[in-house]
Amino acid sequence: MNKVRVGIIGAGRIGKIHADNLLRMGEAEVVAISDLCVSDELMAWASARGIGMVTSDSSEVIAHPDVDAIYICSSTDTHVPLIIQSAEAGKHVFCEKPVSMDVNRTREALEAVKKAGVKLQIGFNRRFDHNFKRLRQLVAEDRIGMPHLVKITSRDPNPPSPAYIQVSGGIFMDMAIHDFDMARYLSGSEVDTVFAQGAVLVDPVIGELGDYDTAVITLTFDNGALAVIDNSRRAVYGYDQRVEVFGSRGAVSAENDYPNTVTLSDETGVVRDKPLHFFLERYNEAYMEETKMFIDSVLHNRPLPVEGYDGLQAELIALAAKQSAKLGRPIRLSELT
Amino acid sequence: MNKVRVGIIGAGRIGKIHADNLLRMGEAEVVAISDLCVSDELMAWASARGIGMVTSDSSEVIAHPDVDAIYICSSTDTHVPLIIQSAEAGKHVFCEKPVSMDVNRTREALEAVKKAGVKLQIGFNRRFDHNFKRLRQLVAEDRIGMPHLVKITSRDPNPPSPAYIQVSGGIFMDMAIHDFDMARYLSGSEVDTVFAQGAVLVDPVIGELGDYDTAVITLTFDNGALAVIDNSRRAVYGYDQRVEVFGSRGAVSAENDYPNTVTLSDETGVVRDKPLHFFLERYNEAYMEETKMFIDSVLHNRPLPVEGYDGLQAELIALAAKQSAKLGRPIRLSELT
Amino acid sequence: MNKVRVGIIGAGRIGKIHADNLLRMGEAEVVAISDLCVSDELMAWASARGIGMVTSDSSEVIAHPDVDAIYICSSTDTHVPLIIQSAEAGKHVFCEKPVSMDVNRTREALEAVKKAGVKLQIGFNRRFDHNFKRLRQLVAEDRIGMPHLVKITSRDPNPPSPAYIQVSGGIFMDMAIHDFDMARYLSGSEVDTVFAQGAVLVDPVIGELGDYDTAVITLTFDNGALAVIDNSRRAVYGYDQRVEVFGSRGAVSAENDYPNTVTLSDETGVVRDKPLHFFLERYNEAYMEETKMFIDSVLHNRPLPVEGYDGLQAELIALAAKQSAKLGRPIRLSELT
Amino acid sequence: MNKVRVGIIGAGRIGKIHADNLLRMGEAEVVAISDLCVSDELMAWASARGIGMVTSDSSEVIAHPDVDAIYICSSTDTHVPLIIQSAEAGKHVFCEKPVSMDVNRTREALEAVKKAGVKLQIGFNRRFDHNFKRLRQLVAEDRIGMPHLVKITSRDPNPPSPAYIQVSGGIFMDMAIHDFDMARYLSGSEVDTVFAQGAVLVDPVIGELGDYDTAVITLTFDNGALAVIDNSRRAVYGYDQRVEVFGSRGAVSAENDYPNTVTLSDETGVVRDKPLHFFLERYNEAYMEETKMFIDSVLHNRPLPVEGYDGLQAELIALAAKQSAKLGRPIRLSELT
Repeated sequence: MNKVRVGIIGAGRIGKIHADNLLRMGEAEVVAISDLCVSDELMAWASARGIGMVTSDSSEVIAHPDVDAIYICSSTDTHVPLIIQSAEAGKHVFCEKPVSMDVNRTREALEAVKKAGVKLQIGFNRRFDHNFKRLRQLVAEDRIGMPHLVKITSRDPNPPSPAYIQVSGGIFMDMAIHDFDMARYLSGSEVDTVFAQGAVLVDPVIGELGDYDTAVITLTFDNGALAVIDNSRRAVYGYDQRVEVFGSRGAVSAENDYPNTVTLSDETGVVRDKPLHFFLERYNEAYMEETKMFIDSVLHNRPLPVEGYDGLQAELIALAAKQSAKLGRPIRLSELT
Repeated sequence: MNKVRVGIIGAGRIGKIHADNLLRMGEAEVVAISDLCVSDELMAWASARGIGMVTSDSSEVIAHPDVDAIYICSSTDTHVPLIIQSAEAGKHVFCEKPVSMDVNRTREALEAVKKAGVKLQIGFNRRFDHNFKRLRQLVAEDRIGMPHLVKITSRDPNPPSPAYIQVSGGIFMDMAIHDFDMARYLSGSEVDTVFAQGAVLVDPVIGELGDYDTAVITLTFDNGALAVIDNSRRAVYGYDQRVEVFGSRGAVSAENDYPNTVTLSDETGVVRDKPLHFFLERYNEAYMEETKMFIDSVLHNRPLPVEGYDGLQAELIALAAKQSAKLGRPIRLSELT
Repeated sequence: MNKVRVGIIGAGRIGKIHADNLLRMGEAEVVAISDLCVSDELMAWASARGIGMVTSDSSEVIAHPDVDAIYICSSTDTHVPLIIQSAEAGKHVFCEKPVSMDVNRTREALEAVKKAGVKLQIGFNRRFDHNFKRLRQLVAEDRIGMPHLVKITSRDPNPPSPAYIQVSGGIFMDMAIHDFDMARYLSGSEVDTVFAQGAVLVDPVIGELGDYDTAVITLTFDNGALAVIDNSRRAVYGYDQRVEVFGSRGAVSAENDYPNTVTLSDETGVVRDKPLHFFLERYNEAYMEETKMFIDSVLHNRPLPVEGYDGLQAELIALAAKQSAKLGRPIRLSELT
Repeated sequence: MNKVRVGIIGAGRIGKIHADNLLRMGEAEVVAISDLCVSDELMAWASARGIGMVTSDSSEVIAHPDVDAIYICSSTDTHVPLIIQSAEAGKHVFCEKPVSMDVNRTREALEAVKKAGVKLQIGFNRRFDHNFKRLRQLVAEDRIGMPHLVKITSRDPNPPSPAYIQVSGGIFMDMAIHDFDMARYLSGSEVDTVFAQGAVLVDPVIGELGDYDTAVITLTFDNGALAVIDNSRRAVYGYDQRVEVFGSRGAVSAENDYPNTVTLSDETGVVRDKPLHFFLERYNEAYMEETKMFIDSVLHNRPLPVEGYDGLQAELIALAAKQSAKLGRPIRLSELT
């Protein structure tokens, strides 16, 4: 194999981003794409990119004899059956997070992947961000000694629609799950207990739907370290994505990314533009990087940077956070099994 | 009265700082100082400053007919009796934090102060820091809308001695208490629940003494806002004192203070000096400011910037944090009464 | 026309960058490329990109009936004849800077372009940099009032080879020419006088070749404003590209770009990585932007963002700087005609 | 001698600052002060500080038998006669800059000082600024290798009154003189040539008075290094005092000082307060430091940090700058003797 031929399931925003990133690589080809709704627009989009098959039936993409790997970019409830179907067809899988909202279903998917001997990468794209990657590198090089505390600020510019909130799995499963993965990635340890404090401060509608829009989550790790994450569905000043790790011999800190480095100084003060607006701008390169790593892993049989197991762990933490916020007490991950 | 004549109890580091700050003001005079040990060095120090009375008996300072106000800078266990004695003698009081480690004793002190109609200011000096004062001003001017989350990073450069740890009242009462006051000051609301997660990561001796050296504390406020505080007894990169407040219409953030603004760029990167070393450097001006405010309040009968009630509330939160860390569950402040 | 079909002359580093950027655009196509040396590597490179013609004869590219526009990326001495030849063939031209090292030859090229009624854009890519573009926008929006001083720091990480120095036209024509264009762009005025101070501090070999490696240049503008530029052939701490504009009502300042926002704090201080290494990293997006603007201008007959006249003016300033450094006195641009 | 007893000539703003700084030191005493106008306010001010002699006759201060050292804080035209008179009376001298506007007169003063064997420190207070001191230290420790370029930004918030402009000696002698001293201090070398470009952009009245309000000055040093300074009489965004030094192995850069580290992020961007307003705020500590060094030098016969020679050199550079701006050509310092 000198090229990985990819089939994409789900032609929404994220599916198209993956398609374009794959098309920019010499080592990948996109041969098929499916979506529940095959519009003229989608036909034209696929045609301009030389994608041969456009279908409303994801099974056709998986069954396509030229397809080596599947990108699952459809809604969360479809992830597990599609992973299992792909694995059984001997196809490698890249799946958006979360794998599912039911950890037992996720475990089934992982079991199928293991049995089939295919690869499964989870779309925790933030691991590939230039800032967080550098931060992880410094921690891994032992530049700060033993990690004591991971601190993650993760705030979205605006809340999603109520319709989305309803199917999202809640703030912990939908939004904080990225931060749970980041905490594991940076601490190099597994989570022991979770304490989550949720609040409805941004929009009462979110509360009426049984969800929170603001949260603070404390984690403890097996190695004794701590993590603290704060989330908000609305940061009017822009997408706020910062991480710090404090260790026995130093600390590392990643600031936000900005569209430019310009400051304007006048009689009122010194002002700069807001941070990059949202995840598409901020994690633009990170999407490219995660796909490069996946294709490289498939092509050269190298280890994956984020495995199915990482998806499962993040889901377990999210589940614990949800219970903790509801019950008002810390939850041990071991309680969930 | 056109000058406040002050008597100081306790001639340790902090007592001397207050003395020198008082001596730099036109509106104050230091007429007496007491310390358990009246050394030749102390006699010389007092003489060079024209302080007439130096004694080992704090009662003499309180009873001194020229003394209008008492600065209590002695060990914590002496605070309550000295406040009561001063109040009964009709003297105004400035007392270092915490008032005591027993909230009922603190309440007695406050009762005596109320009955005597004197003023009692607590030494929460950080409220007077140029950064945090500016931050509070922006919040109070409604520049960020309704506060949603207060986030406080508070890390000391090095742990105190084991001997100090033993009498300190623990990390929550000794160190985090400043942050509890800051959280109340910035949120403009009272604390409802406290969840504290403690760890021993810096020095096992601290654990053997029954204390923590690392902590993450989550607070909820009556107005629905949240706060999160992280503490460490050791930050090898320097005293780390940062605060952020996130609100419905914006956020404010205060960075550390540095000894200079110089960066050195060479083949290895861009480097600047560490932040100001510790509280004496960082809060140097804040000590001056708090004393200015106290003297001004006494002289012109203006409201105090930090009252006895603020001391009591911070102690209650510290007590709740201690219980929370021990019991592994959130504690409501209302459980403590 | 719904696509601009491009022929590229010169398949060096910069020619290939333009090719790849053109290939990423829907509105452009690359149909031919020429280079003095048609290697197997070049054939493979062109084939992978679907470029039909690869030739050692630039005339074939210009004469190609499908070619609408020519990118001139060959050595500086070939620019003028190729511009004239392209113009006479009715082809639009994008030409790298400088047009030539002889302003009279440059004038001939401009004359030919004018006569033929084609477009000529000069490769002053820095105008398209995200930072400088934002800075220009703020000046143009009158956010700083009347510009008083433009200040440009422009320092390369390492000097080029002696062989390159010899044919480069010298530090003013080769390196500072970008800054001369930036000064005109930001001040919105034409240069009146030039005073250049050159020095050989980096490498004596550069001095032996009759060039400088360090320079400070002061410009005065017709509108009374001033500019000051400092150049060095070696900045060991990384590519240093910063600009400030001071005006009657404020100032704008653009800092360097960095590969990440991470800082590491330890006992020695707070350190971050060096700025982006060199022009390919720093101006990566700017190259894309300038090509987008050129293609857009050709396709929709819109005004060019940088014209031949801009190339001529920058050359005149460079020439004046060269004379000023040699004669040790300010030179008026009007002396050069 | 275990205390330096000081007499101050000139009770304006700067004279009073020096007095208060001296009074805060254990090793100094202020015994006399003179001013052309001995007001009731001055009498009260002196009385509150225990200053025994207040007089309108500077000779009485110099002749006072208890006075060891004279601070000359009167108008520039009085500096030379007062230095000579003080030196002849065997008194050490601290003199504000510039010594005079006539370098030959300055030489006379230096001669008298030398003959009398007393000390003369010039008030180049910026050498004692925490930022510039750190910067000099890094250069002196050879952290950036051989200095290639010193770059100084020095811009005042607002122009002085026309009356002051008239007696100021002009922008180069009054304002840039600090920067000329800084350039010598940081480069560790003497100036060879000066090229100054002046402009009137802030206020035409300044031009009518024969002065400039905006300037860019290029210096060359004996060791081959360059310096560039930009000055403005108006920076509406606050006092702008920044310095950079670029060397063969690195660069150092000192940013402005700010009143706090707070940023406010909202929908419009990220804003912080303006830099510290003017020299009294910015160089507050530096005034204290220079006086500490002077007193220490007198008391313990240690070398002065800024000598009369430094004052003379800065004046020579200012004179050269004035001529350069007028004649429109670079001036060598050697032309001036």
